Amino acid sequence: MPTTLPVSGRAAVVAGWGEPLALREYPLSPPPPGALLVAVERTTICGSDVHAWEGAYAEHFGVEPPIMLGHEIVGRVVAFGDGPRVDSVGTPLAEGDRVVWEHEACGHCYFCSVERNASLCESRRIGFLVSTDAAPHFHGGFGDYSYVWPRSGRLRVPDEVDSALAAAASCALRSAIPAVTRLGPVDFTDTVVVQGTGPLGLFATALFSTHSPRRLIVIGAPEERLAVARAWGADVTISIDECPTREERLERVLAATDGRGASVVGEFSGGRDAVAEGIDLVAPNGRYVVAGSLGGPDQSVTAPKIALKNLTIVGSLGAEIDSYYKALEFLRLQRERFDWDLLLGSSFGLGEATSALRKMQAFEEIKPVLDPAA
Amino acid sequence: MPTTLPVSGRAAVVAGWGEPLALREYPLSPPPPGALLVAVERTTICGSDVHAWEGAYAEHFGVEPPIMLGHEIVGRVVAFGDGPRVDSVGTPLAEGDRVVWEHEACGHCYFCSVERNASLCESRRIGFLVSTDAAPHFHGGFGDYSYVWPRSGRLRVPDEVDSALAAAASCALRSAIPAVTRLGPVDFTDTVVVQGTGPLGLFATALFSTHSPRRLIVIGAPEERLAVARAWGADVTISIDECPTREERLERVLAATDGRGASVVGEFSGGRDAVAEGIDLVAPNGRYVVAGSLGGPDQSVTAPKIALKNLTIVGSLGAEIDSYYKALEFLRLQRERFDWDLLLGSSFGLGEATSALRKMQAFEEIKPVLDPAA
Amino acid sequence: MPTTLPVSGRAAVVAGWGEPLALREYPLSPPPPGALLVAVERTTICGSDVHAWEGAYAEHFGVEPPIMLGHEIVGRVVAFGDGPRVDSVGTPLAEGDRVVWEHEACGHCYFCSVERNASLCESRRIGFLVSTDAAPHFHGGFGDYSYVWPRSGRLRVPDEVDSALAAAASCALRSAIPAVTRLGPVDFTDTVVVQGTGPLGLFATALFSTHSPRRLIVIGAPEERLAVARAWGADVTISIDECPTREERLERVLAATDGRGASVVGEFSGGRDAVAEGIDLVAPNGRYVVAGSLGGPDQSVTAPKIALKNLTIVGSLGAEIDSYYKALEFLRLQRERFDWDLLLGSSFGLGEATSALRKMQAFEEIKPVLDPAA
Amino acid sequence: MPTTLPVSGRAAVVAGWGEPLALREYPLSPPPPGALLVAVERTTICGSDVHAWEGAYAEHFGVEPPIMLGHEIVGRVVAFGDGPRVDSVGTPLAEGDRVVWEHEACGHCYFCSVERNASLCESRRIGFLVSTDAAPHFHGGFGDYSYVWPRSGRLRVPDEVDSALAAAASCALRSAIPAVTRLGPVDFTDTVVVQGTGPLGLFATALFSTHSPRRLIVIGAPEERLAVARAWGADVTISIDECPTREERLERVLAATDGRGASVVGEFSGGRDAVAEGIDLVAPNGRYVVAGSLGGPDQSVTAPKIALKNLTIVGSLGAEIDSYYKALEFLRLQRERFDWDLLLGSSFGLGEATSALRKMQAFEEIKPVLDPAA
Repeated sequence: MPTTLPVSGRAAVVAGWGEPLALREYPLSPPPPGALLVAVERTTICGSDVHAWEGAYAEHFGVEPPIMLGHEIVGRVVAFGDGPRVDSVGTPLAEGDRVVWEHEACGHCYFCSVERNASLCESRRIGFLVSTDAAPHFHGGFGDYSYVWPRSGRLRVPDEVDSALAAAASCALRSAIPAVTRLGPVDFTDTVVVQGTGPLGLFATALFSTHSPRRLIVIGAPEERLAVARAWGADVTISIDECPTREERLERVLAATDGRGASVVGEFSGGRDAVAEGIDLVAPNGRYVVAGSLGGPDQSVTAPKIALKNLTIVGSLGAEIDSYYKALEFLRLQRERFDWDLLLGSSFGLGEATSALRKMQAFEEIKPVLDPAA
Repeated sequence: MPTTLPVSGRAAVVAGWGEPLALREYPLSPPPPGALLVAVERTTICGSDVHAWEGAYAEHFGVEPPIMLGHEIVGRVVAFGDGPRVDSVGTPLAEGDRVVWEHEACGHCYFCSVERNASLCESRRIGFLVSTDAAPHFHGGFGDYSYVWPRSGRLRVPDEVDSALAAAASCALRSAIPAVTRLGPVDFTDTVVVQGTGPLGLFATALFSTHSPRRLIVIGAPEERLAVARAWGADVTISIDECPTREERLERVLAATDGRGASVVGEFSGGRDAVAEGIDLVAPNGRYVVAGSLGGPDQSVTAPKIALKNLTIVGSLGAEIDSYYKALEFLRLQRERFDWDLLLGSSFGLGEATSALRKMQAFEEIKPVLDPAA
Repeated sequence: MPTTLPVSGRAAVVAGWGEPLALREYPLSPPPPGALLVAVERTTICGSDVHAWEGAYAEHFGVEPPIMLGHEIVGRVVAFGDGPRVDSVGTPLAEGDRVVWEHEACGHCYFCSVERNASLCESRRIGFLVSTDAAPHFHGGFGDYSYVWPRSGRLRVPDEVDSALAAAASCALRSAIPAVTRLGPVDFTDTVVVQGTGPLGLFATALFSTHSPRRLIVIGAPEERLAVARAWGADVTISIDECPTREERLERVLAATDGRGASVVGEFSGGRDAVAEGIDLVAPNGRYVVAGSLGGPDQSVTAPKIALKNLTIVGSLGAEIDSYYKALEFLRLQRERFDWDLLLGSSFGLGEATSALRKMQAFEEIKPVLDPAA
Repeated sequence: MPTTLPVSGRAAVVAGWGEPLALREYPLSPPPPGALLVAVERTTICGSDVHAWEGAYAEHFGVEPPIMLGHEIVGRVVAFGDGPRVDSVGTPLAEGDRVVWEHEACGHCYFCSVERNASLCESRRIGFLVSTDAAPHFHGGFGDYSYVWPRSGRLRVPDEVDSALAAAASCALRSAIPAVTRLGPVDFTDTVVVQGTGPLGLFATALFSTHSPRRLIVIGAPEERLAVARAWGADVTISIDECPTREERLERVLAATDGRGASVVGEFSGGRDAVAEGIDLVAPNGRYVVAGSLGGPDQSVTAPKIALKNLTIVGSLGAEIDSYYKALEFLRLQRERFDWDLLLGSSFGLGEATSALRKMQAFEEIKPVLDPAA
């Protein structure tokens, strides 16, 4: 532990829904037992950060400004709370080591203990749903510092993995991994459709391509993202700009799958009708994972197709520490095969965070990077 | 083979959609290799027969009257085509033996051979979609005779099983069995909701009850059917007459499941909004099988719940000969536990078949029985 | 918390392998954060306790006397360490409440975090492998008090469940539950063989019987235990006293399974050749779980049968807090169906613990009960 | 059909166990309904052919010479029996088209119909277990002609796939495919060990490599086969010539898997102790498929490891027409990635068949090719 802990740090907080972020100074306190204080190395911005900024979660979660955005974070350990100085897989941790970590589940509810799916924990502590006024203040990644909660799994970032990528992996990729896993085996006989070319869809594309499917089809826009999809393994890309109707896209998918539809479809877009469309795209006996659709209005679904096509549809909300581990491993092990940098956007300082959010809102950036030290 | 084959028999055919059936006489011919000619012992009537009678399949399948209804049939062997005189599990067959049999799949298409799901065969021969004018005429169960197609699996009915029940088992129960199987294990920790109290839902109720779930809840109507559900193992029944809104039914299910929803839900009703409702009823991490919804308008589904609740949803269309076998075994093995006769309705002669269809249409009968010899 | 914590308590410790237990007094200390101090209400004795007493784990685990036996324990809360006063599913805990708890896994190794199987944790703290001389001394159940470790899952015992049964459930039943679960669905079409009539085999018999298998066959001895097996659902029992050879037992099983063998077999006996025998007993396409064989010499296995019969063989070591929860629920929910008291043996005071171990060694007791207050 | 069918053809038959094959002339007859007469284009030789030649199956199956070896065959259609002129996935077949086909299962036994695993059919017709003296004589691939049985699935060989490879695929690859499938998903987190570098092990290596495992380790010999393994995706090869003891091989595997063992192991060697060794090589929570061990003496297995490591062990005997289809598709789709020709050995005429068997016996050839026209 350093002889002296820093006494305060800056946070770019949401002071009003959709307003420019406000730079504020908050005091630091030593981490409680099991926790870590980290200096934020890089934070990448997620679609959910934009939604939170816009106030989308205000009513449902009863959250009020100020809040601190940012949940895709790599931090360097500044101070340890009491407890073993190792990460969740036993790797020793020292000051200065880079870590990623998970939301904190309570560990003592039915869903944590019996269903063993902490993503369903009803008391999960998620940084941007906690007021920044409440100590220890640094609940997110839009600041100089952040805290790793006592019960949050945490992992040392492998040296081979860049901080901005590790940050991005800690949300989008660690969500894509259980989604692909929930589908069961994918192999050379499968035709795969990925709906969506955001970070989730692009990482899913990379994951699917490691199984050498017969055909890997990605639906999305704009063209720059489709280009990343192709670089990461897509054989066929379908632009929703060029094929704006569901009928056109279905026709393209059928043409690429012997007229049967895809044996495997993944929803990673969060589009308005995405699930209704996905059920059309999947072949008889096929499998469909829904990972991107987390909100929006009800969808008009041709429900009998579920039975008539003998479908398997799975939702995926899993994101335990094992998924973080696999996400980092995927970046590390497959870094020769995939040019991960294609995903990353421009770099912004804390003072430019509002601008980063706006560019994301405008689809001008896939994954902007915040560097508090910049 | 009898020294003389009967030369002709009666069929009660649909001569016009929704019109009273017409009794006609058709000639009999010897069964081709691998086929059987059977004398119909009992035919039970399925909801699909009513739909077919009403002309519901006319447009989609391009079928024209006359057609012969009835696909839940027990027949006694009258004549054998060339080939081994055994059923699909090797039991020897003799003249006079009772058999049930499946629709005939082609056996040489992608879905039969690679997906190994003959229910998805695109050239499947289904009796009531074939003109009765086409030889050998007896394609259904509403007549004195019927044919078991060469490639149709067939099974000798165990002596302990009544003909009318075996007939009913050959459609409703053999559909309920793969539906329950597709869900995976159900045990004493599970809370189960069955949507529907038609034959499919009632058989599913019996099947679920053999796994001793923590709670078995059945939603349906009218009261007589709910009483059968209770006799077959339901702990809680919810009447859609008494709880006509989705909100009321959801509240009842939550009250019976610690507020979580059911860990397992099965859709066996075919109701207009049944799938949309079922997705509300299932607990986080829960499983849902859709077996009853085979038609009807699109449903307005809260799609994000699929991901947010980490659901597993499976459609079930499987109905291979293994399901017929298990259906007969279920009737035989569990006959002490369940009073199967509660399912059966009144008995009708061939000349009364129209009346049987009308009673079914009016929900006055669960499962009417046709006895051509009556 | 009581105004005054008791200052010391008695423990019946193993002072030398196989020697009579020695009653010793140890001081009590307040429980650390997250831990509980409990007064032992009942401890039931497990075969592993007998093995530990005999010194069977001395060499492998490098453990030396004195040790305190007993890991099937129900205790009443005496004092809380800091932290939430709830059990692992959120039930509030108060002083005097009865609890069961698990061995403590480290929570920060590859097997805990990535494989998510804490039973494989290489740093798991198991009471009888820790010296009783090390504070806080009360590592087991053979004493007046015991400690629930900070990271050990713990559950309030439902009021409907007797303490001795809850104790027994916390090892044998919570091991049987994941074993049966690992097999996948068991239904009315399955023929099941349970190898073993110790507590593990008997609980497995009860669990299997809740799925209404076609036939439930139990192999074991002596006759009193086979009688419990029959009371808990076995259709057929095979006595290894009457059928001492593998050939005889195989013949009996084939006779009860249409000559095919059992579609599901469970090894719960720990017998010398049990796995080799089980592989013979299982039918082609069948499933086999190995849960009881945790030691002993190598077995001579006809390995080609694994491929030629297309078998699925699973080992089961799972025993997380979810299994404890389900074990208690099973006792509670199925208490009308099963007479659980048939399992329990005589009751012994702390001073009679050696005698209890000896009776267990001699197969005179299935599950003796220790009552420190007696 | 040709205006004139050829009247006879040559077969190289086993006239005495282990003796040089005898060239004999047998008459041809028109194929019965559903069957095909084909001119053998290429036959590849399988280890089982060598065993059959040596008389290994004589006692168990009660088979006597003369028999005709060869079950990895590509034939060109010469004549059709009555029935649809399509293959098992609906592709039209014409005279001269190349086909592969499966052993013929009865289709009317418990294992065919209920277990739906025709490999377990007790009446399966396997060519080299049938006397060549019985009409229609041409039961195998060591001749000018062969018959495709009426109930045997058959597939047109895609134009892109070489005949000798398609022949090899029809046994070794179609066995490797269900074996790999039975294991469940394999991905970038998995470390995989393949035991064996015969055709089965090498094809399995290629299959595993399409899933981009973290590490792919192959154990076998001689060096030329290990070189093929490396060319087909192995990262690490362990020579049993260089590491002749189990201990040495285990050490190598542990060194390549962070000391844990492999998360996935496949037995494709048929070695004497291969299964006992494989159980040592697999990591806790790991999966093991046994596909190669189809005979040999009992193995001394450390059975407790199955439970203590929480293993999943599956045997694989599946080889339905879907596996043939996938095998051909694998060759076709992945032909840019894998140099399939590395597998094939020298080409032999019918008169040289004995020499081909001897070279195989001496491990001088992986997969010799028979060309009757040569």
